[in-house]
Amino acid sequence: MRKGFLVSFEGGEGCGKSTQIKKFSKWLEEKNLDYVLLREPGGTELGEKIRNILLHDKDELSSKTEFLLFSASRSKLVSDVVKPNLEIPGRIVVMDRYYDSSFAYQGYAGTLKLDDIETITKFSIGEGAEPDLTFLLDLSYDTGMSRKSKDESLKDFDRIEQKGKSYHDRVRAGYLDLAKKHKDRFCVVDASKSVDEVFSQIVSEFERRYDLKMAKSGKKSK
Amino acid sequence: MRKGFLVSFEGGEGCGKSTQIKKFSKWLEEKNLDYVLLREPGGTELGEKIRNILLHDKDELSSKTEFLLFSASRSKLVSDVVKPNLEIPGRIVVMDRYYDSSFAYQGYAGTLKLDDIETITKFSIGEGAEPDLTFLLDLSYDTGMSRKSKDESLKDFDRIEQKGKSYHDRVRAGYLDLAKKHKDRFCVVDASKSVDEVFSQIVSEFERRYDLKMAKSGKKSK
Repeated sequence: MRKGFLVSFEGGEGCGKSTQIKKFSKWLEEKNLDYVLLREPGGTELGEKIRNILLHDKDELSSKTEFLLFSASRSKLVSDVVKPNLEIPGRIVVMDRYYDSSFAYQGYAGTLKLDDIETITKFSIGEGAEPDLTFLLDLSYDTGMSRKSKDESLKDFDRIEQKGKSYHDRVRAGYLDLAKKHKDRFCVVDASKSVDEVFSQIVSEFERRYDLKMAKSGKKSK
Repeated sequence: MRKGFLVSFEGGEGCGKSTQIKKFSKWLEEKNLDYVLLREPGGTELGEKIRNILLHDKDELSSKTEFLLFSASRSKLVSDVVKPNLEIPGRIVVMDRYYDSSFAYQGYAGTLKLDDIETITKFSIGEGAEPDLTFLLDLSYDTGMSRKSKDESLKDFDRIEQKGKSYHDRVRAGYLDLAKKHKDRFCVVDASKSVDEVFSQIVSEFERRYDLKMAKSGKKSK
């Protein structure tokens, strides 16, 4: 049995994922909990190169090529970082996006079959790297974009953000479908609520699940 | 039916692939045959970035990560370049390595299951992008290395070339197995022969197959 705990954060544009992850990391630090924060794509030297290609390349990339690049980055991150960290008792691995993003973006919103994504994801990450808990910050596209536009001018939006409303509506519907399929690990949070309300829901759900798992594995949380 | 003709060149280190492809391209030009030369990984802006990662990155890459990077590069090359070129009557697409390399290097010589490589290759290239003819330049590792060492010092060898004899023996055996499985398109050439002997075998086999296909598709070769 895995000794660590893997928690992933998912959601569409402007859902407040970055803000919540920042607050959550700070909270873990204050609680003296042992954690590592990873992002996808990224998290390794290779992953950061791929991140750069995916978010800023001028070439138009198909869903297929995008997904294969994500999978390459993911395979290295999982074998080099995620799995070794999950061997450490009590260690918390926090993922800013993980494979659910591939299902939502390249599957539900893109052109790929969900079965193909599943097959290749199993190939790329192998066994024992599924999240214990996935927070889906659920928000409508309009609310998300109106939040984003307060900080950034539209021309600075990256390649994925520029794809428009119908694309992002499909991303959102896809995430909600994934949450239904994987009820055991998904926690859907209404991200239209205030930052503090969202955060408090995240913390209480995390504590409940983490304590439960550590109790089972014989290690109490601090 | 595809209107163009796809010919790929495969083989281990020092087999003379580059020399033969150079001679073959020159020959195509002299014959006024319409061709495009592509290399793997590479052939697109994305592919060249991936090539750079694969051949020169200091990070140790697993067979899995390597293969997913090749597949990402391949999916873009095939959809953007190979398939459109094969729509042009008589057009010859010359590939310096193609998916057989993945089977040989990451499968037979690496750690991946051939079935996984097959599944993901089908996903990445789709239908209608198989070679009409594949030249395997077959050579023992020792002969190949002794040729290479005349030109280059060992320290300049790239990442894949540094993997040693047993790895390259598995590559060679893998290629020979692929040639058995796909007798219809493979042509195994004894690369220990002189450059001119090898080239003459390549040209005569190419002419035979190309003329046959063009005759079938109603277009005579020039």
